[in-house]
Amino acid sequence: MAIRGAPALAVAGAYGMVLAARKATLGNVRNQSKQAADLLIASRPTAINLAWGVNRMLKIVNDNSISDADITANLLTEAHAMAEEDILVNRKLAENGASLINDGDTIIHHCNTGSLAVVDWGTALGAIRFAHEQGKHIHLLVDETRPRLQGSRLTAWECEQYGIPYEIITDNAAGYFLRSGKVNKVFFGADRVAANGDVVNKVGTYMLSLAAHTNGVPVYSVFPLSTLDLSIPNGDQIPIEERDSDEVVGLEFHGEPVAPLGAKARNPAFDITPFHLITSFVTEAGIITPPYEQNLARYVYNTCLEGK
Amino acid sequence: MAIRGAPALAVAGAYGMVLAARKATLGNVRNQSKQAADLLIASRPTAINLAWGVNRMLKIVNDNSISDADITANLLTEAHAMAEEDILVNRKLAENGASLINDGDTIIHHCNTGSLAVVDWGTALGAIRFAHEQGKHIHLLVDETRPRLQGSRLTAWECEQYGIPYEIITDNAAGYFLRSGKVNKVFFGADRVAANGDVVNKVGTYMLSLAAHTNGVPVYSVFPLSTLDLSIPNGDQIPIEERDSDEVVGLEFHGEPVAPLGAKARNPAFDITPFHLITSFVTEAGIITPPYEQNLARYVYNTCLEGK
Repeated sequence: MAIRGAPALAVAGAYGMVLAARKATLGNVRNQSKQAADLLIASRPTAINLAWGVNRMLKIVNDNSISDADITANLLTEAHAMAEEDILVNRKLAENGASLINDGDTIIHHCNTGSLAVVDWGTALGAIRFAHEQGKHIHLLVDETRPRLQGSRLTAWECEQYGIPYEIITDNAAGYFLRSGKVNKVFFGADRVAANGDVVNKVGTYMLSLAAHTNGVPVYSVFPLSTLDLSIPNGDQIPIEERDSDEVVGLEFHGEPVAPLGAKARNPAFDITPFHLITSFVTEAGIITPPYEQNLARYVYNTCLEGK
Repeated sequence: MAIRGAPALAVAGAYGMVLAARKATLGNVRNQSKQAADLLIASRPTAINLAWGVNRMLKIVNDNSISDADITANLLTEAHAMAEEDILVNRKLAENGASLINDGDTIIHHCNTGSLAVVDWGTALGAIRFAHEQGKHIHLLVDETRPRLQGSRLTAWECEQYGIPYEIITDNAAGYFLRSGKVNKVFFGADRVAANGDVVNKVGTYMLSLAAHTNGVPVYSVFPLSTLDLSIPNGDQIPIEERDSDEVVGLEFHGEPVAPLGAKARNPAFDITPFHLITSFVTEAGIITPPYEQNLARYVYNTCLEGK
């Protein structure tokens, strides 16, 4: 948890492969890099980006035309390239997302999806920042995002840096504001998106999306295409990381512990938002609307073709 | 906030009236008691029980057949009677609620509705405790209930006292568990219920109920009939108390502040759950099912008749 944010995990995974190759004992660079890849991917099971980043590096490790001596240098070049790409992809994402934001919008944002979650710019918060820099007046309601409070700790801090007007709300309060008719949009990122468009994202995203959808407030999930996992038919097949109880109960409320000594918590870090609650997806390749199953596959196919 | 819980507020308001009458200057007991009543009622605008308790005491203050000298003693007798009644009403509530709970149920509970919220027993948690004492095996998922964490701080503590197996969850995680098919019921109290059955309760109740309803999980709101406000046609007319920003941002996460210095929060303490999300209401007079507008009025009318 020293690094978080799906796109940041991809690039961190890539650099992790560089470190593993550098540390490898003589003659074992390929084997030890592959072992490192397994370890890295297993460290965070939910976000697909980490596996995506590491697997991209594995192509170099598995390329027998590259000599053992050159592997480390090639991995480093590739990791740098991925970091640069991440900035470009995120800037494009941000620009695409900003096109959905109007002057005067009040937006609820969940978790942290800004430059602290990527190399630069960010996904959902990148779009909000881009719109803000275009001169659109935005008021952000920042979900604090229990248990790790990425909203109040990270997103609020980013808002301060960019000068975006914001107020923090408890995750519980989102429903109250959504029913009030004063919220125009909901924005968040994604940790993995299944072939049918189900979104696995930070826990709380499901209830937020449901309340928004029920009240006619558009819901946007913003992510790079590397977050798509077309091998998984729907969200219920995606493993949900359950983290330590202490993230929930190891908190102080005005100097007092928040729970009885020895109390245990269940702590799923993510949840599954069914695709029909999402108004559209924002990617670097464009804004994707329903029907998602067809359109997500089409975008991935077209992007692959362009890459060739 | 030294006292919380709708039924506890009613009885505390009654004793508050006793204290005001005791402190009144000679010859001013009626006037000063009336002023105290205004002050007490205004201190917590959302829960109707406080006004209900204070207004019951005002009947004595306004009864000119009682001499000034006797008012204080009569108020004290009435406050004691209300405290005793609260225990009986809550026990009946608990018994009625327990009839809905099956052996083996997993239940999500929001906020604190146990003996710490009333004089004894409690409303929703009282029902769970009653079922537990009947020997039914219950597993409770305790919503921590941000911002004031009444779930992890109070409900978890009560579960420890009664020996009810429980785990704490973040409010965000409720949606994950409701979608999993492993939750059988949702239980909470109420701070005020409108004539149409809309429930105003601790913030987060709306999103929890919506997620439960969407996933076919029954939702029960447990409250004494004194929580009903038939003078208010629907929940949108009920004033929602907004509390201090510091309740949200004045928290520490592993020794660090949870938000940038000077960050502000919006902090509605309650929200409105539309009646159609509630499976049934549990009261001391019985379990009330839809159509709520007719049935709530009928229960109140019958209870009034019995009281005569």
